[in-house]
Amino acid sequence: MNIPKDHPRYRSLTVREHLAEMVEKGLVTPTGMISHGRGEAFDYLMGEKSTIPALEAERAAAAFLLRAANPVICVNGNAAALDPDNLALLAREIPAKIEVNIFHRSEERMEKLIAHMEEHGAEGVLGRRPDSRIPGLESDRALCTKEGIYGSDVILVPIEDGDRAEALADMDKIVISIDLNPLSRTSRAASVSVSDEMTRALENIIRFARELKHDGNEIDRVINGFSNDSNRKSTVEAICGSLMSEFRDVG
Amino acid sequence: MNIPKDHPRYRSLTVREHLAEMVEKGLVTPTGMISHGRGEAFDYLMGEKSTIPALEAERAAAAFLLRAANPVICVNGNAAALDPDNLALLAREIPAKIEVNIFHRSEERMEKLIAHMEEHGAEGVLGRRPDSRIPGLESDRALCTKEGIYGSDVILVPIEDGDRAEALADMDKIVISIDLNPLSRTSRAASVSVSDEMTRALENIIRFARELKHDGNEIDRVINGFSNDSNRKSTVEAICGSLMSEFRDVG
Repeated sequence: MNIPKDHPRYRSLTVREHLAEMVEKGLVTPTGMISHGRGEAFDYLMGEKSTIPALEAERAAAAFLLRAANPVICVNGNAAALDPDNLALLAREIPAKIEVNIFHRSEERMEKLIAHMEEHGAEGVLGRRPDSRIPGLESDRALCTKEGIYGSDVILVPIEDGDRAEALADMDKIVISIDLNPLSRTSRAASVSVSDEMTRALENIIRFARELKHDGNEIDRVINGFSNDSNRKSTVEAICGSLMSEFRDVG
Repeated sequence: MNIPKDHPRYRSLTVREHLAEMVEKGLVTPTGMISHGRGEAFDYLMGEKSTIPALEAERAAAAFLLRAANPVICVNGNAAALDPDNLALLAREIPAKIEVNIFHRSEERMEKLIAHMEEHGAEGVLGRRPDSRIPGLESDRALCTKEGIYGSDVILVPIEDGDRAEALADMDKIVISIDLNPLSRTSRAASVSVSDEMTRALENIIRFARELKHDGNEIDRVINGFSNDSNRKSTVEAICGSLMSEFRDVG
């Protein structure tokens, strides 16, 4: 399909078409498309830009990742399809490990996703040979590696489902979520809830990581000064402000 | 997949799985799944129930449909997949015609959708042999029938895209949208913007139609007393109230 470049929602429609292709290729599941749509709605409510609270959470995310002993970036089908380049770039910048971990697991789909990440510059991607389980999750969804997700102290979960985010938080990990819905179970479970579109979030975290990486004192200040509850509250206030703005003159 | 019945989002996940099957069958497109997800997000913000402004808009929708000379219910892939029974039931109740009209048109998909609607009790479904075009729309998206969409004075468009809703409004039709996002281009273009989940909306409109159909004076009162702008404003206020409710105690 050709989307006219002057369409008011050009970028969003282009991403949709890209994801639809990724469904054909077996990287994204049809229900993954619904998750994307849910995110789109919140992005729309935030004016499709990084809000001030999102930038604060992204700076905190960079600080926690830099301070970690074993930081891991957890990649699922939607994340890999949406922006493999920036996921790989962030992993190099911190440095952090990447582990592919999916809800609808099959060996074929795992292999496709890992190969896709490697084609986009990711190195040493984990997930092929799981040797541990995330406690509290059923069946294949629990599978992970000791070296990666299981042994991580700080874990970045872009576009994660609520069950897994909660299970990871229950393991006393510092969970950093990227989830456009500030009220989702994932955002509620996380220690740092980044409510921003994934590409914007990754680019901002990479930028903040470059800025902070040689300044240990500033990393401490950012970590100590961050409150996730008040950050989520500010995000919701920003959404409501934008929602109500067009009705100022309606009685 | 087996979704546990006590899962906090059981109904929503069941609908997702159903739609994923409909993608396999070719009734729903992968990008249709994204549209569904966008709607889900707003449904979530409204507490997954019909708000008071939604009920008011649904009563107005029933009144406009009953008053119409040629009321038409426009059905696309998502609508047909989500609730063919209530679409057929509403058409009988008013009575109104049903026309299938899709964004990604192929003869095969049209035939599948019409057959699907007929299996669920819809009669005389239009759309197989279009003989008119909606002005202002490009290519196949404009195709419709003179007897149905083209000649309608009141048209119900559940889950319609913004371009088509605007084009129908430009034809001076009374457009009744069912779209969970009160700020979408579709909701903005409509004369009556129902912001509610489609099944709940249809069931409510059917109930109001039964209540109003023998009371012409009350139909007039409902139509004259309805303001779509203030209804949309109330919807957005309801969403913000629910969004902010969990942060009452956060400083």
